[in-house]
Amino acid sequence: GPAGMGASVREGQPCLAPQEWEGRWVQYDHSTGRNQRAIVSYDGLNQRIRVLQNHKKHTPCQKYFEYIYLYQSMVMFQIDQKTKDCSKIALTEAWDPFDIPDNSTFEDQYIIGGPGDNVEAQEWSDRKPARQHETWVGVYTLKDCYPVQETYTRNSSVTTSTRFFNLQLGISDPNVFTPPSTCQSARPERMAEWAC
Amino acid sequence: GPAGMGASVREGQPCLAPQEWEGRWVQYDHSTGRNQRAIVSYDGLNQRIRVLQNHKKHTPCQKYFEYIYLYQSMVMFQIDQKTKDCSKIALTEAWDPFDIPDNSTFEDQYIIGGPGDNVEAQEWSDRKPARQHETWVGVYTLKDCYPVQETYTRNSSVTTSTRFFNLQLGISDPNVFTPPSTCQSARPERMAEWAC
Repeated sequence: GPAGMGASVREGQPCLAPQEWEGRWVQYDHSTGRNQRAIVSYDGLNQRIRVLQNHKKHTPCQKYFEYIYLYQSMVMFQIDQKTKDCSKIALTEAWDPFDIPDNSTFEDQYIIGGPGDNVEAQEWSDRKPARQHETWVGVYTLKDCYPVQETYTRNSSVTTSTRFFNLQLGISDPNVFTPPSTCQSARPERMAEWAC
Repeated sequence: GPAGMGASVREGQPCLAPQEWEGRWVQYDHSTGRNQRAIVSYDGLNQRIRVLQNHKKHTPCQKYFEYIYLYQSMVMFQIDQKTKDCSKIALTEAWDPFDIPDNSTFEDQYIIGGPGDNVEAQEWSDRKPARQHETWVGVYTLKDCYPVQETYTRNSSVTTSTRFFNLQLGISDPNVFTPPSTCQSARPERMAEWAC
């Protein structure tokens, strides 16, 4: 069919992704082989992210955490959802927003879904002509530039891929970025995810 | 926001995927770290798939192939797109359609895209209560059950993930499943993808 015979590409400038949204993600960690599902609040204006891990069935040994990343203070709070135990960890990597940097390389444009029930997306990467492999690939919707998928690669091997769902514009409750009172006496070590 | 506060799940029976379609896919091979983009014709009724590799920029050494998988004959033809050289290879794994098997486990339901411009999808796997890890995860659209993504895992590590695009119902040209005349004297070895 005509739609299968190649992409109708419109190369140009990357779109501008929304700066504040709420939704969910599934993050696949290739080093552990595990999927992490979470509820996410993303505040690009103030460089902060709040990640509330979803509970899984059949995992009695796992602890579930809330993570509050505050990149303007370069600190992350890890909070045990059950006990409210809190760890305060220094961030070492710079703020990296969920958007398409201006100097990105256009890779592809396509329709996700079936006829009459789909969303059109563009794929961008940080690939450069002199390099065989890219280290970042981002898929964003064509219309309003919402994130669909982000993949990070190191040494030709994928490290994490994140898929985004149920996105809504804005932050309904800015308080989610405020750590609970138990974080005033936070420990400096990261808590383990597995209790047994 | 309400949409971020967990999935509005409707657990039940898997949907029935379309049996014949054309479109594109990007297949990520985790062992090589490479993405393969291709035009695909899928004929589930006759258990055959035709894959036409897309040409990439900046890859002078790569050969591009057409693949014709005929599972009723358990044979695959690999055809050099430029020279029409043809190899005929016996298939060793059974036909595995792009659908959600009846005994699959419901994992999640979510909306891909932004507000007012999105597609709703369900995620299913072959996870069983006694096992920690699944070996297959399939994402299909809720409305007409078109494939969105399929991921295969072995020993807790992803082997391939395939994302589907620009899907159209039906097969516009059934001749794509007929190997060219050069396949009458096909060699039995697989041809290498890299010429230099």
